[in-house]
Amino acid sequence: MNITHPFLDSDGDKLREECGIFGVIGSPEAAAITALGLHALQHRGQEACGIVSWDGHEFFARRGLGHVAQVFADQTIINELPGHMASGHVRYSTTGGQGLRNVQPLHADLARGGFSIAHNGNISNAMHLKQELVDKGAIFQSTSDTEVIIHLIATSRYPTLLDRFVDALRMVEGAYSLICQTPKRMIACRDPLGIRPLVMGKIGDATVFASETVALDVVGAQFVREIEPGEIVEVRQDGRLSSHRPFGRPSPRPCIFEHVYFSRPDSVSGGQSVYEVRRKIGIELAREAPVEADLVVPVPDSGVPAAIGFAQESGIPFGLGIIRSHYVGRTFIQPSDGARHADVKRKHNANRALVEGKRIVLIDDSIVRGTTSMKIVQMMRDAGAKEVHFRVASPPTNNSCFYGVDTPERHKLLAARMDLQEMTKFIVADSLAFVSIDGLYRAVGENGRNAACPQHCDACFTGDYPTKLTDLADRAAEADQLNLPVGKVA
Amino acid sequence: MNITHPFLDSDGDKLREECGIFGVIGSPEAAAITALGLHALQHRGQEACGIVSWDGHEFFARRGLGHVAQVFADQTIINELPGHMASGHVRYSTTGGQGLRNVQPLHADLARGGFSIAHNGNISNAMHLKQELVDKGAIFQSTSDTEVIIHLIATSRYPTLLDRFVDALRMVEGAYSLICQTPKRMIACRDPLGIRPLVMGKIGDATVFASETVALDVVGAQFVREIEPGEIVEVRQDGRLSSHRPFGRPSPRPCIFEHVYFSRPDSVSGGQSVYEVRRKIGIELAREAPVEADLVVPVPDSGVPAAIGFAQESGIPFGLGIIRSHYVGRTFIQPSDGARHADVKRKHNANRALVEGKRIVLIDDSIVRGTTSMKIVQMMRDAGAKEVHFRVASPPTNNSCFYGVDTPERHKLLAARMDLQEMTKFIVADSLAFVSIDGLYRAVGENGRNAACPQHCDACFTGDYPTKLTDLADRAAEADQLNLPVGKVA
Amino acid sequence: MNITHPFLDSDGDKLREECGIFGVIGSPEAAAITALGLHALQHRGQEACGIVSWDGHEFFARRGLGHVAQVFADQTIINELPGHMASGHVRYSTTGGQGLRNVQPLHADLARGGFSIAHNGNISNAMHLKQELVDKGAIFQSTSDTEVIIHLIATSRYPTLLDRFVDALRMVEGAYSLICQTPKRMIACRDPLGIRPLVMGKIGDATVFASETVALDVVGAQFVREIEPGEIVEVRQDGRLSSHRPFGRPSPRPCIFEHVYFSRPDSVSGGQSVYEVRRKIGIELAREAPVEADLVVPVPDSGVPAAIGFAQESGIPFGLGIIRSHYVGRTFIQPSDGARHADVKRKHNANRALVEGKRIVLIDDSIVRGTTSMKIVQMMRDAGAKEVHFRVASPPTNNSCFYGVDTPERHKLLAARMDLQEMTKFIVADSLAFVSIDGLYRAVGENGRNAACPQHCDACFTGDYPTKLTDLADRAAEADQLNLPVGKVA
Amino acid sequence: MNITHPFLDSDGDKLREECGIFGVIGSPEAAAITALGLHALQHRGQEACGIVSWDGHEFFARRGLGHVAQVFADQTIINELPGHMASGHVRYSTTGGQGLRNVQPLHADLARGGFSIAHNGNISNAMHLKQELVDKGAIFQSTSDTEVIIHLIATSRYPTLLDRFVDALRMVEGAYSLICQTPKRMIACRDPLGIRPLVMGKIGDATVFASETVALDVVGAQFVREIEPGEIVEVRQDGRLSSHRPFGRPSPRPCIFEHVYFSRPDSVSGGQSVYEVRRKIGIELAREAPVEADLVVPVPDSGVPAAIGFAQESGIPFGLGIIRSHYVGRTFIQPSDGARHADVKRKHNANRALVEGKRIVLIDDSIVRGTTSMKIVQMMRDAGAKEVHFRVASPPTNNSCFYGVDTPERHKLLAARMDLQEMTKFIVADSLAFVSIDGLYRAVGENGRNAACPQHCDACFTGDYPTKLTDLADRAAEADQLNLPVGKVA
Repeated sequence: MNITHPFLDSDGDKLREECGIFGVIGSPEAAAITALGLHALQHRGQEACGIVSWDGHEFFARRGLGHVAQVFADQTIINELPGHMASGHVRYSTTGGQGLRNVQPLHADLARGGFSIAHNGNISNAMHLKQELVDKGAIFQSTSDTEVIIHLIATSRYPTLLDRFVDALRMVEGAYSLICQTPKRMIACRDPLGIRPLVMGKIGDATVFASETVALDVVGAQFVREIEPGEIVEVRQDGRLSSHRPFGRPSPRPCIFEHVYFSRPDSVSGGQSVYEVRRKIGIELAREAPVEADLVVPVPDSGVPAAIGFAQESGIPFGLGIIRSHYVGRTFIQPSDGARHADVKRKHNANRALVEGKRIVLIDDSIVRGTTSMKIVQMMRDAGAKEVHFRVASPPTNNSCFYGVDTPERHKLLAARMDLQEMTKFIVADSLAFVSIDGLYRAVGENGRNAACPQHCDACFTGDYPTKLTDLADRAAEADQLNLPVGKVA
Repeated sequence: MNITHPFLDSDGDKLREECGIFGVIGSPEAAAITALGLHALQHRGQEACGIVSWDGHEFFARRGLGHVAQVFADQTIINELPGHMASGHVRYSTTGGQGLRNVQPLHADLARGGFSIAHNGNISNAMHLKQELVDKGAIFQSTSDTEVIIHLIATSRYPTLLDRFVDALRMVEGAYSLICQTPKRMIACRDPLGIRPLVMGKIGDATVFASETVALDVVGAQFVREIEPGEIVEVRQDGRLSSHRPFGRPSPRPCIFEHVYFSRPDSVSGGQSVYEVRRKIGIELAREAPVEADLVVPVPDSGVPAAIGFAQESGIPFGLGIIRSHYVGRTFIQPSDGARHADVKRKHNANRALVEGKRIVLIDDSIVRGTTSMKIVQMMRDAGAKEVHFRVASPPTNNSCFYGVDTPERHKLLAARMDLQEMTKFIVADSLAFVSIDGLYRAVGENGRNAACPQHCDACFTGDYPTKLTDLADRAAEADQLNLPVGKVA
Repeated sequence: MNITHPFLDSDGDKLREECGIFGVIGSPEAAAITALGLHALQHRGQEACGIVSWDGHEFFARRGLGHVAQVFADQTIINELPGHMASGHVRYSTTGGQGLRNVQPLHADLARGGFSIAHNGNISNAMHLKQELVDKGAIFQSTSDTEVIIHLIATSRYPTLLDRFVDALRMVEGAYSLICQTPKRMIACRDPLGIRPLVMGKIGDATVFASETVALDVVGAQFVREIEPGEIVEVRQDGRLSSHRPFGRPSPRPCIFEHVYFSRPDSVSGGQSVYEVRRKIGIELAREAPVEADLVVPVPDSGVPAAIGFAQESGIPFGLGIIRSHYVGRTFIQPSDGARHADVKRKHNANRALVEGKRIVLIDDSIVRGTTSMKIVQMMRDAGAKEVHFRVASPPTNNSCFYGVDTPERHKLLAARMDLQEMTKFIVADSLAFVSIDGLYRAVGENGRNAACPQHCDACFTGDYPTKLTDLADRAAEADQLNLPVGKVA
Repeated sequence: MNITHPFLDSDGDKLREECGIFGVIGSPEAAAITALGLHALQHRGQEACGIVSWDGHEFFARRGLGHVAQVFADQTIINELPGHMASGHVRYSTTGGQGLRNVQPLHADLARGGFSIAHNGNISNAMHLKQELVDKGAIFQSTSDTEVIIHLIATSRYPTLLDRFVDALRMVEGAYSLICQTPKRMIACRDPLGIRPLVMGKIGDATVFASETVALDVVGAQFVREIEPGEIVEVRQDGRLSSHRPFGRPSPRPCIFEHVYFSRPDSVSGGQSVYEVRRKIGIELAREAPVEADLVVPVPDSGVPAAIGFAQESGIPFGLGIIRSHYVGRTFIQPSDGARHADVKRKHNANRALVEGKRIVLIDDSIVRGTTSMKIVQMMRDAGAKEVHFRVASPPTNNSCFYGVDTPERHKLLAARMDLQEMTKFIVADSLAFVSIDGLYRAVGENGRNAACPQHCDACFTGDYPTKLTDLADRAAEADQLNLPVGKVA
């Protein structure tokens, strides 16, 4: 089963958020609400999903490959997840042979009882910690970095579970939003920099946690607030809530790419409407890189809000010059001759009647490898466009992410290999422009990037990583000993 | 397996095109091209699909429930459909117990050799003809109206296949676009009024037939022309093409709803861009039913082109006030309390940050039962819209279709039950307007509807059916004898 | 899915009964009883099965590839076959690409209502009749010879169904036991010579028909009598039974191989216990072909009763020198080197401790190609047997069957290619003997074979076919024109 | 998927061996040979199976629910298990919710590399050890007792793997035959008392280990010797073999029930042919409990060898009075009225023609709950038997097994609840007798049971358990505190 991201081209020419998480405590329909919430977060991970529930006596789990609507299709499956507390996870990638073992929430029987964990993010010293744990006799059942946290809790010498949990988190570095369950409570937390998102809501007396506000909307919950960076929120089975801040209050660095692409446009992140931020990026782009043209064409669907903004600011009409098929899904048989770029055409087809003879401004959210951009420019020209100007609603992506986003190796990123002129030539556009980093920060409501203390994690654009990257350093050191080119390590 | 239309709400509040057809002769990759072409026609039928190929010696067939990308996922399956000629079919509905027997193309071994048929449309005297055939000893293997055509051919007393084919078509009434295969040729034809569409293209030396031009685009074929109403086009294995017009040249009546909703916006139908027609309907609507408002919001995705037209003509900004999920697919577990209208929210979520406090113009392509319209208006109000004005890019739908479109029984159509004021109240809108029938005809390039001799089939709006409806009349007569209410017969 | 006969070697070195049939009328649990009855007849056909039921208003059908216990595993499936009348079928072979279309019971909607048919046997002029029907416009949905009967009924000009049924049967030649259903009744019949078996029983007020008495035992029915050759038994929904004899009373010729191998040992056929007949064949063999030896070893499981008889008559001890595995089922991966004859060993393993150093009499029911016999003799020698004497509980099989038994082409039959001495050498036995044809007739209770008017069909041993073989003659004539060797035609 | 033991009645009225193991090192076809070997051991566990292979660089694993011929049906699956070393496991039970996690061989990545383990037997202090390990921070992935051994190895402080392995085994009590793999070697061992079997063979240069000799026969290997009780055999990748005896040489106590029922009759165990032992038990039975009768009838298939022995010793003819169906497999729909005892009849049908009017001696291998025995006696009477005398080829089974055999709780064992007279009445037999414990020992080649130092584990007959039963004692202590009846604990 190989299900591809419906927003994506088959060559994967987008960054990919790797996970979405959801939890609810205090509702008799905990598993059904979790399934619905995960469904609303499906864009954060399409390959696998799972739910773990607690009925007051036992934990119940169901995990599967595929979409939420496939894995949790039947009422009988929901019925097998009884209880008032449940949490769930959608994920992008599961490495081949491992099958279901890496599908979350992970669950373990610890000395004090069961413990489940759903994780969005990436532990950047997971390999390092795992080696230490295995040397002491720990046996890992998955290749997931998340399991490291469970083993750290299991082997912590502190007396209470909360102390053991904090003790474990002190040892990990990187990005993590977590939703955990024990027989007594649900624990939600965000890493000290708040790199990955996590919000809290209420549905009646029940408390809900989710990666994005859209999941609250869909399950009918009221938004309460975001979990703060470094905060641990504990909710007991009786509904009592307590908040802990064991890591002090460092300056937050939430991921700015959530606004650019990952989050759904109908989510609100950091107090900003994602749709509005994208529309404002379009406005910034129109100001920073204006062009004479006849039609503003979004690359569907993620380029639409920025294209609307660009059209409004520039006065150039907005039109659907590319039509997206709703039926992509799987890899597909290609006739070996026949259509040129049939793989792209299956998903995106030029609206020739609209495009023919016009000067086009194409708006896309980002350029990763550049291969799809090139094909889409070509598709516009094949459909008779006179000129094709490419505008990108994010700065050049020229660094890998180590915080839970699937990025190609650095040397495959177009912006890491070429300057603007070379890129323009590569995609065969008449002109190419990216929004500036300050323009992006303005669109999210800042006056610009504060270089001394950036308000967001923007490492994919700037290379400014807000945490240590121990595993990467270890591999670089090892490669150094072996005389391997470091560039291939990332 | 119950796969729903991704454009549709779970209550099926749209008319549904029932079929798409595709064929190619003269290519070594006939089956692969057909699979790709069917994929581009997937919006015309999502429940089942099939391909029949001919390799010079034998016919090969594969049919299945599900999407093209599921049924024809593997290269091995394509390899089992060898040969230079193939045709295929996607369909909306297969009646329950019948399983795969109704999935087309149908195939039969006639006295002169194999014969396959793929049909888009509906034979309106099929029951009548079937009863006659069964009385003479014919044994039907499906409940499909299409099989009637095969039996009529099999029992015709004319000497050549083409004569037998014409003899059979003379006995049927209704709508049909057909792609047939015999060991010697491919035959494509359209009913005398051309109710359902069919186009022809070339890919190298190979000839291609398809329901819409988008399928030509996607497989890399050049558009040649539409099959004319009443035309029978015959293509031999050596590529020679001949055209026959056995039914004279009655005034054509192609279905106007293809422009409103069925066809993809990137198709060209009757020489008109479907996208442009829809945008022009939006312009007509803005002229016929203007309103003071702050934002034009399309009901995604089919309302988008008309909304763009409306915004351009009215000067009111266009914005995505409703966000559509890409992950719908199957029916899904609902928490029994929890979210109000969770079924709609799973697919369409309000973009509250954009909508709140604004006067909204909602644009949708049509209203069928009205249940979804009501929920979407409510969703806008729940998201804080001050006013909600509903504009519909087609006239009131108040008659059933008997030409291959799945319509609810007449008494379930909102416009058949209520006048405009009642409908406005039913969907709880501040105002409601439909484009006029003349406005619709103007958008498709006419000066208005020619009542004496209408240029299109528009029976769903006008009740003016262009053919006899024998089966319906039979059932009405029977119901009359039984004193059944005739209203329930349709 | 390729499920092999568990009694058989992978090279299919047995004759194979092709079908079993079962029907019940007058029970509220008709489908459940039919499933159980088919299960008891599973040895007559392992590849596919089906049940059709009638609930007073509609026919319901379920067919599938696989064993009865797989296809009818769930109560829900039985629930979908409601009504007081049901019939079913198990079959050996379904030709590849045809999939489920050939799985019986076949069902058709005739002018006077639905009609289902389950057939055990083979129509030896089916191709001939089919060509005539197709020439008149009939469209066949399967490649099964059985469908010919349905078309003959559908096109008969007689007024009542029973007349049409008799009219159809007058045109067919060959072997057939049939169980048919119409909305009004169940019809069971046997061809005029009674080549294939069919018995009748009662379970309470319900009437049951089955290929063998074991199915009556298993469903808890009382045996009433055999359907007589050429008899048509009609049972109405109210239980009234009538018997018709439209074909006169020719001398019966029931298949003698049912005793040798096809029927289960716990069935009673023609008034004779199948187990006892096989034991008596062993006694005849011990008398006709005695040998000095230490141990009588059956080839399991079908050789066991004859081996018991041989041991009892000869005084040589009986022992399980070959152990059969219960886990065969599918084809299986073979290491390419590794075990010699691993395919045989997977199913039959020598019991070395018993065999070593002994003179062995091996008893098997028949020899077809001889390949398995050769491997089993070798297995005995590898296990240390001093001498291996082979005794066969049937005469040499040297003709193909055209009455519903799957036989290899004639030139593959060992006894058609070799004399006794050559066969002995081929299987590398110390001696080889077959029971005589008269010995076989004595075991079934006759005084010997009446050559003038044989009491059974024994064509596989004698070449004396009791009916015309029109299709075979047609093919032979055609082959003659083409100068093909006639020997390959069968 | 619920696949039942084909030897068994649906009520599970047999003791069930829980596992079979197989391993091979030094063959390029290691996985294919292992699949074939497991197939020959299928009777030791039908519910799940798995294979782990090592190709010099990596371990590969495949586990599944179902028979070997299902899980390892395809060549592609075997191809995904490359390398010269492989081991496999068949098992009887997998507890429901745990799914595949308990299917062996288990595999873990330890600090020094990968380690896989396949286990036949049961660790009688597993719960006790697991609690200690979890308290120290170990995280278990299965509920299998076998995983305890892996954790003990992982946390052992000895330097070499072999030392760690021995260190771990010193802590466990109970029964275990193990086949383990590391990147350097295969390790096979048997617990100090040799309770469960394990044999060694050679196939060319490759070394093979298996639970029974029949697996050696089927893969074409030569039997070398049994692994001795308490022996650890280590085979390096280059074929070098070393044997270790770290536990001294206590008197062996191999399970005597392997002869009675578990092992295949064509295996040799402890130097004795299993078939011959069973035949001799029949001889002992005929001497100890003679009876006047007309026919000796085995309960198929396990009662056949003893029945042959009984018939030979008594002079009463042997006959198949019960015919076993080969098509059992799954649970099956039962008509609610219809056949009495249809569940038994589906599998065992009386051969009425043979049984009617006769005095019958029924021979079965054992009586567990007695429910099936009762039904079979009734079946003989329903078929017209005049008298039914029941003879059992083992002593009364009145104690549970804690060494890897699935036994009902003690209070469900017929012989634990009733004396001989009561049992006779319960099964409604004319007489009932069991072979004596000394008779059983004589049949396996002893002069009788040595009460001071029994030559076998016979705890199921005598209650004399050869090891401590720590978990049972713990539970009994706990139950004592809770005032639970101890009898229900087992």
